[in-house]
Amino acid sequence: MTEQTPAKVLPEGRMEKIVSLCRRRGFIFPSSEIYGGLSSCWDYGPLGVELKRNVKEAWWQAMVRERDDMVGLDTSILMHPQVWAASGHLAGFTDPLVECKNCHLRWRSDELKEDRCPSCGGELTESRQFNLMFKTFMGPVEEDASVVYLRPETAQGIFVNFQNVLNTTRKKLPFGIAQIGKAFRNEITTGNFIFRSREFEQMEMEFFVKPGTDGEWFKYWLEQRLNWYLKLGIKKEHLHLREHTQKELAHYARSCSDIEYLFPMGWAELEGVANRGDFDLTQHAKSSGKGLEYFDDETKEHFLPCVIEPSAGVDRSVLAVLCDAYAEEPDPSAPLRTGKEEIRVVLHLHPALAPFKVAVLPLSRRENLVKVAKEVYTDLRQGWMVSYDDAQSIGRRYRRCVTVDFQSLEDKQVTVRDRDSMNQIRIPIAELKNTLAAKLAGEDILVLPPGGKVWKEERT
Amino acid sequence: MTEQTPAKVLPEGRMEKIVSLCRRRGFIFPSSEIYGGLSSCWDYGPLGVELKRNVKEAWWQAMVRERDDMVGLDTSILMHPQVWAASGHLAGFTDPLVECKNCHLRWRSDELKEDRCPSCGGELTESRQFNLMFKTFMGPVEEDASVVYLRPETAQGIFVNFQNVLNTTRKKLPFGIAQIGKAFRNEITTGNFIFRSREFEQMEMEFFVKPGTDGEWFKYWLEQRLNWYLKLGIKKEHLHLREHTQKELAHYARSCSDIEYLFPMGWAELEGVANRGDFDLTQHAKSSGKGLEYFDDETKEHFLPCVIEPSAGVDRSVLAVLCDAYAEEPDPSAPLRTGKEEIRVVLHLHPALAPFKVAVLPLSRRENLVKVAKEVYTDLRQGWMVSYDDAQSIGRRYRRCVTVDFQSLEDKQVTVRDRDSMNQIRIPIAELKNTLAAKLAGEDILVLPPGGKVWKEERT
Repeated sequence: MTEQTPAKVLPEGRMEKIVSLCRRRGFIFPSSEIYGGLSSCWDYGPLGVELKRNVKEAWWQAMVRERDDMVGLDTSILMHPQVWAASGHLAGFTDPLVECKNCHLRWRSDELKEDRCPSCGGELTESRQFNLMFKTFMGPVEEDASVVYLRPETAQGIFVNFQNVLNTTRKKLPFGIAQIGKAFRNEITTGNFIFRSREFEQMEMEFFVKPGTDGEWFKYWLEQRLNWYLKLGIKKEHLHLREHTQKELAHYARSCSDIEYLFPMGWAELEGVANRGDFDLTQHAKSSGKGLEYFDDETKEHFLPCVIEPSAGVDRSVLAVLCDAYAEEPDPSAPLRTGKEEIRVVLHLHPALAPFKVAVLPLSRRENLVKVAKEVYTDLRQGWMVSYDDAQSIGRRYRRCVTVDFQSLEDKQVTVRDRDSMNQIRIPIAELKNTLAAKLAGEDILVLPPGGKVWKEERT
Repeated sequence: MTEQTPAKVLPEGRMEKIVSLCRRRGFIFPSSEIYGGLSSCWDYGPLGVELKRNVKEAWWQAMVRERDDMVGLDTSILMHPQVWAASGHLAGFTDPLVECKNCHLRWRSDELKEDRCPSCGGELTESRQFNLMFKTFMGPVEEDASVVYLRPETAQGIFVNFQNVLNTTRKKLPFGIAQIGKAFRNEITTGNFIFRSREFEQMEMEFFVKPGTDGEWFKYWLEQRLNWYLKLGIKKEHLHLREHTQKELAHYARSCSDIEYLFPMGWAELEGVANRGDFDLTQHAKSSGKGLEYFDDETKEHFLPCVIEPSAGVDRSVLAVLCDAYAEEPDPSAPLRTGKEEIRVVLHLHPALAPFKVAVLPLSRRENLVKVAKEVYTDLRQGWMVSYDDAQSIGRRYRRCVTVDFQSLEDKQVTVRDRDSMNQIRIPIAELKNTLAAKLAGEDILVLPPGGKVWKEERT
């Protein structure tokens, strides 16, 4: 557990560069941008949607598909209001809010350093508790009885379905229920791009264990989850664990550690791993009057399981992946091509996450060349997102991935160039698919075929 | 274009059977069930979440990954309120509502056959227009200025990003933008299980074309989308097209046809394919003051493209898939096993959609058998959802898929049994993966390895 100090000083303006790259390349746009945007809501563009899908897919693969002790779930965003009474969100999911009596701007009082308005210096009202749940009305009448909330977390959808899952899958402890979905928090203070927004997506898993074993499972999941980020290529020195202090601990948590990432604005939470004890099941059993106990076949005991919860943010993971992949570096091919040094901007995205796995490029638009290139493209596209590009100059084209040239017509081989090292190999078209598959599955190949598209940026 | 009459009479109680199967097997539960449920919201259980993911994945694969003329997008649920002013939803997305003066129940007046309350016979109020958008407040104050809406369709997120996509991808007409996501409608009348719910998921695509070519593209997409359902195994006789009458046409549509499915309650919309003309881009250009025109490189013209929109429901697709796969039929293996006829309930799900692609079953729990079975299981699980089961009786176990028996230890072969035909073949373990892959990819193999798990239901 380390301190909350940056491991190294990040270059200034890094976040601005990433926001700009995302905007320019079609990763992420401000929501409703033609209408001036909607505060802290974001749209994922053509590349962003693929990156985000890949992050979620990697999580689902690791958490659900590769495990015997896990099942998935997908519960609704609108839930019965009693869920939030039982979970404590109605009473306690609040931020302290003050308003300036002069300019009427509102602030989180726990974030203010002074007693007067940071904008105009006006006097502030008394602090009051502001609930962060978005509320809406279900049915045709706007009255108290019809109020429902947009879920502020996906976790409760799992707890209220605990017995349903138990009955239909006959899982035995320990086992987990995993879910990916949108959640909404009416934050007073938002910001840092997609780091804190009012609409966001979560990847949450509740792991149900026998009481007494929760301590060791907590450690297990902390390690598992940290490794997941490492496996996706996040640099070790940009990740650390931070244990919550006793004062910081949420009311439901026995212990909690955050996996923090060194974002451009500093260390911040990427994922929280909490030991929630039996808090949630106890609350819902009490509130619903339903028996939510687990029956242990072997010991013949009835009890409420304890719960370990790794709760990750999809958008934060995407941001961390982008920050970590972003590099400005000397273009290794520039001196050969132009006789000069050039700086290129590359996103060194992990093969499993890169929106495009490979690009296919005919050396020219000559018909016979295009024909072969299209065949290669069509074949590869059955399995992966593949880009086809015959619009650029030869120089640029050669920086990218699978190039079909005139020699290909004779020897049925293509040139494969790696995005990162710019190394190239020449391999038979017939071996292309298997070579790429091996590389994308993480196998070690000495001269690497490409793991992603090069995002060559102009330096203006 | 056929009439809205059932192609055949469906057995009574079919919907109830499917709802019950979904509940019992962990496909779909009522939302917040331990609190009595939340009107017309649903949770997808361990099997349902996989089926739903597979439906969405099949759509994304067909619409985005396999096409050159398409990109994806993922926009936020909360959007700027001006979006809904421009699109016409604020003024016109309404149902006519009446209230009973006696019992205060509310009804859609256009669905009432009589002038008095269907529940108590009381007098009804005048009809008023009720807007179907869910509203909420963004920011700390509940006032008119902070009202935002949950999107009632994903389409508008695409239209307001038209220029963003154009600028970042440099796509040329014709091309499409595809999106999958949640939408919300505060329906007065809900029902028919997941057919009409207040929270639902859409798969929408806006295809931008040169004005004048919209008629032929409309026909093209109608055919493409119909074929998509056929390819996923939906029976031809359960699908038809229904052209909207002039009176039915939405204000934005030049023409519209529904792809209807023969649900247990009758023919109903699965997907709508509409020619929206340039209505939406015109509205947003006017309302935002931004130029949303497309520049044609070849003709040097500026114009607003026309739009063809195939809009499909994820939940409706899931329901159609379940209804179509559901079968009660004589168990072909029963007479051999028990000497008696037995009826089994099977979901004949298409291999691409089945939650589990295959089950691995050791004949007994003997250590050496389990070892081999687990190896097969672990190997297959890299690519697919695979079930492992050593808990059932041998009789039942043999109905399913890959069985590892004592002979397997010697000849390194396993028995593969098809879910539907119950035919079985014996193949080397080394060939298992390729054989399954071929089958799942739809290749014709005479004696079929399994395309899904058998859902054997007890008849009680």
